[in-house]
Amino acid sequence: MLSINISLTPENFKSFSHIDNPIVVVVDILRATSVISTAFHYGIKEIIPVSTLENAKTFLNKENHIVAAERNAQPLKDFDYGNSPFQYMNNNIKGKTLVLTTTNGTKAINLASNYDIITASFINVKSITEYLITSNRNIIILCSGWKGVFNLEDSIFSGLLCENILSSGKYASNCDSILASTYLYQLSKDDIFTFLSNSAHRIRLKHLNMEKDTEFCLNPSIESDIIPQLVGNKLISVY
Amino acid sequence: MLSINISLTPENFKSFSHIDNPIVVVVDILRATSVISTAFHYGIKEIIPVSTLENAKTFLNKENHIVAAERNAQPLKDFDYGNSPFQYMNNNIKGKTLVLTTTNGTKAINLASNYDIITASFINVKSITEYLITSNRNIIILCSGWKGVFNLEDSIFSGLLCENILSSGKYASNCDSILASTYLYQLSKDDIFTFLSNSAHRIRLKHLNMEKDTEFCLNPSIESDIIPQLVGNKLISVY
Repeated sequence: MLSINISLTPENFKSFSHIDNPIVVVVDILRATSVISTAFHYGIKEIIPVSTLENAKTFLNKENHIVAAERNAQPLKDFDYGNSPFQYMNNNIKGKTLVLTTTNGTKAINLASNYDIITASFINVKSITEYLITSNRNIIILCSGWKGVFNLEDSIFSGLLCENILSSGKYASNCDSILASTYLYQLSKDDIFTFLSNSAHRIRLKHLNMEKDTEFCLNPSIESDIIPQLVGNKLISVY
Repeated sequence: MLSINISLTPENFKSFSHIDNPIVVVVDILRATSVISTAFHYGIKEIIPVSTLENAKTFLNKENHIVAAERNAQPLKDFDYGNSPFQYMNNNIKGKTLVLTTTNGTKAINLASNYDIITASFINVKSITEYLITSNRNIIILCSGWKGVFNLEDSIFSGLLCENILSSGKYASNCDSILASTYLYQLSKDDIFTFLSNSAHRIRLKHLNMEKDTEFCLNPSIESDIIPQLVGNKLISVY
């Protein structure tokens, strides 16, 4: 039986180091992995996730590169784009390289960069589910959290993904993170946007007038078959 | 408004370092903090939590000392006691010093030893609630987890404790850990023992024929007013 596990924050990830040859699924619903799915859906060629602003700045003004940065939920001046998925819904991104640095999501990707990594969001959850079930690999879902602490949106999404994968009958879990996440998904699934009304990050984005982003990331108007996969230091799209 | 927070595992604790002058409430329901409450209730004088077996061994054969050790849910040979609360229900412990090392709980206590620490369990949850509400201090509830990962029993207990404290109207929370823990407590409160049937640690203790311990820790037959508080390197009981 294969194993499936959820690391509820990057800080817990090292405790899963005993798992044999896993695929790591990075989740940052609000908003990095939703942005990654959206950007690939609208034609970006590849995405370089970087952890620091300094590293991101070295790509500014490079031909065919878009450099996007977010800290504390806000876009930063001097950079081309921020972390709103709507910015990526345009023809200008087609065929280009996106360099992306965010508060939590890109750090989680780089934390796990020694592993085989894919990224997931509500936009590509169906294809991610199929990809994982047919992979016949152990799975660690790595929630990005918020500055080292648990968040609801990543765990609720992980609950959905685990339910889907466990229903295949190929995976076993003895991980309390999965029990908690599937309970939270069941409680919230009829209306995740409303369920998260009091959650820390929804309130943060609300104060910044980013309700539209939250609504889109939790209940996206697009569905994508793309599997963003880390190859070397770049995410590329695999169908 | 005072702040209340839950660190769902020791690995997340450093992310709460910005909180001003908090009381840290260490929780390890199965079983360290339940054992600590029980031992004080039955008359132990003081408890020295130590992180390593080597350190615990230096107290063996010391007059008026009981040395207890647990690793991977099991008692260890060479030590006087293990981590079952029933072992402490005897007159032999009265007035003595307990030296205790466990897989998770005593490590969490030592991790936070620069802070003001108390320990909590279902046995003393009422007095802990009153103590915290009247403290007028910020609060961090530190769940011990299991070897660096989330567990259900500590978060469910934390959900109960938070509900109690938030009902005072003196505390505000913007922490998703609290939302998740109170949801899990609400789902489970009618019968936490059954709710946890598939949880990792209940299964672990079941395999070791420790169901009675689990039942007692989740639904204790004793209620205690004791507030175990760390003073120097020792827990003492404060009423």
